[in-house]
Amino acid sequence: MTILTFGHQNPDTDTITSALVMADLQKSLGKDIEAVRLGDINGETEYALNKFGVEAPRLIESLDKEEVILVDHNEFQQSAPGIEEATILMVVDHHRIANFETAGPLHYRAEPVGCTATILRKMYKESDVEIKPEIAGLMLSAIISDTLLFKSPTCTDEDVKAAEALAEIANIDLQSYGLEMLKAGASTKDKTAEELLNIDAKSFAMGNHEVRVAQVNTVDIDEVLARQDELEQAINAETAQEGYALFVLVVTDILNSNSKVLALGQQQPAVEKAFNVALDQNTALLEGVVSRKKQVVPQLTAALTE
Amino acid sequence: MTILTFGHQNPDTDTITSALVMADLQKSLGKDIEAVRLGDINGETEYALNKFGVEAPRLIESLDKEEVILVDHNEFQQSAPGIEEATILMVVDHHRIANFETAGPLHYRAEPVGCTATILRKMYKESDVEIKPEIAGLMLSAIISDTLLFKSPTCTDEDVKAAEALAEIANIDLQSYGLEMLKAGASTKDKTAEELLNIDAKSFAMGNHEVRVAQVNTVDIDEVLARQDELEQAINAETAQEGYALFVLVVTDILNSNSKVLALGQQQPAVEKAFNVALDQNTALLEGVVSRKKQVVPQLTAALTE
Repeated sequence: MTILTFGHQNPDTDTITSALVMADLQKSLGKDIEAVRLGDINGETEYALNKFGVEAPRLIESLDKEEVILVDHNEFQQSAPGIEEATILMVVDHHRIANFETAGPLHYRAEPVGCTATILRKMYKESDVEIKPEIAGLMLSAIISDTLLFKSPTCTDEDVKAAEALAEIANIDLQSYGLEMLKAGASTKDKTAEELLNIDAKSFAMGNHEVRVAQVNTVDIDEVLARQDELEQAINAETAQEGYALFVLVVTDILNSNSKVLALGQQQPAVEKAFNVALDQNTALLEGVVSRKKQVVPQLTAALTE
Repeated sequence: MTILTFGHQNPDTDTITSALVMADLQKSLGKDIEAVRLGDINGETEYALNKFGVEAPRLIESLDKEEVILVDHNEFQQSAPGIEEATILMVVDHHRIANFETAGPLHYRAEPVGCTATILRKMYKESDVEIKPEIAGLMLSAIISDTLLFKSPTCTDEDVKAAEALAEIANIDLQSYGLEMLKAGASTKDKTAEELLNIDAKSFAMGNHEVRVAQVNTVDIDEVLARQDELEQAINAETAQEGYALFVLVVTDILNSNSKVLALGQQQPAVEKAFNVALDQNTALLEGVVSRKKQVVPQLTAALTE
C-alpha cells in the first residue's frame, strides 16, 4: 500500500512543501509514497509552487488505516481525521510534542529549528541523495515562510545556512525572491473574514481550555483591522460552533515585525495576563511579536494553566 | 544549572549505559551534564561497568525542575517523579511514544532499532566526536543486553553492525563477552521474589487498564518457576498495592530463546487471548518469545483494547 505523507490542517508553505520534499526523498530511497494535503493551498504557497514548477499535493479528507509519515506537526488534533487508526512510520517536525502516541516504535526526528525543511535537508545529506533544483526551491521557500525571511525569533543559524546552501542549488536570490513570496501571501483584500481566520489557524489544548490561534501575515495591519466588525462576527460564530474558550487572531506585519492581536472568548483576560497588555476594543499591539510558536502559544499556555 | 540525563525506572543495561554515554557525548560538545539513575544497578549492568572500569551514575529519587535529557524511554510513568515540571531538552529512544508531552520544541530522536546505544553511536559520528574504548564497551554491552546477543526479533542489521564496530574500538570478542555478561545478569537464586519482579519491570496503559510486565532473564526457567508460590504471593501483594489489572511475569530462557509467562490479576484471560494459549496453573510456555516490546506488549494491548 502506498505510504501517505502530509503536514497539518490549514496548510502553510512549510507543511505543503515538506510533504512534497519528504515524498521526493523517500522515492529516491525506493519507497512507494505520495504527498497529500489536508486543506487549501494559500497564496504564498501557490506562488512558490508556480515559481519552481511543482504541482500541489492531492487533497484528502481523511485517512483509512494507511501507513503515514507526518511532517511539520505531530498533535493529532492538527492532523488528518483517522490519524489514531493509521500506522505512523515516521515524524519529522520542529514543534513541541503533545497529544501524540503510537502503538509501536517509529522514526521520530524533531529539532528546535525554525523550519521542517532545515531538518529534511540534513536527511538528504545523511542519505547521500542529491537535492534537485526545484526541491531546493521548495525547501528555501519553506524556510523563508516559517522564519519571515530570517526575522522570526524561531530562526536559527542552521536555518540561515540551509537557506543559503539551497539558494545556490536553486539559483535564487533569497532577499528579492523571499520578499516577493511573502507579499504574495500577504494579500488580504480578496479574502472573506472566514478565509482570513483559516489561512493559518491551529487549535491548542491549554490547561483545560481549547484555544484557537489564527495568524494572518500582512504588509498593512490597518487594512486587516478595518474589517474588525466582520472578523469579530466570524470569530464569534466559529467559537460558538467549536466551543473554543478563547480565539486569538494574530495579525502580523511582516515588514516591521510587529503583531496586533484581536482576542475574543470567555478566557479573554488570559491574553492581557499573557502579554502584560490592556486590550482596547478587544485588540492590543504586541511589539516585536511575529512567532506563534515562541511568542504566543507558550505565554498563553502559562496564563491558562497557572 | 547542570543538565541531568537518565533512563527509565528499574534500569537495565541500555538505560544505565546510555545515560553515561549521553553525558560523555554532551560533555565533549561543551555541555554541563551529569548522568543519573532512577533505581538499583542489576547484576548484568554491574558486570559491564566493572569490565570497562566505569562508575555507576548517581541515584536520584525525583526531579526538581531541572533541564533533562531522557534516554531509552519517554513514557512519563516510566520516568522520574517530577518529569512533568522538568524542561525536556532532548530524547533519544527506541520505543513507542506515549504519555509524553512538552511545552516547547525539543530534540527528539527515535528509531525503531534494537537499542538506544545504536542511535547514540550515530550521534557521535554526526558530531565528529571520537568514541573512547570504555564508552564503546558500554555501548556494545547495551546492544548485547537489549538484543540478547542478536537473537531478539528487535535486533536490526544496524544493531549488529554497530556492535561489531564498537567491539573493534573496545577490543572485545562479542560472543564470549556477551555470553558472560548475559549469564552474570541471569543469576536468580540470590534474589528475593520481590527483587526478581523488579529487575526489569514496566507499567503500561492498555485500554483502560494498567498492566505490569516484568521480565527475568535466566539460563534455567525451571529454577525460577520452582519458586512459583513465593512469586505469586509477591505479585498479588504488588497488584493489591498498585491496583494493576494484570501482572505478567515473563521468564526468558536466554540460551534457547523461549519464555514462560506467569500471569495473575483480574484481566488474566487477556493473556490467553493475546498469545492464543491456555494457562495451566497461571503459566504458559511462549515458544520463541524473548522481546517484551515486540512480542508481548503489542499483543496484550490488542487483547485489552478490542
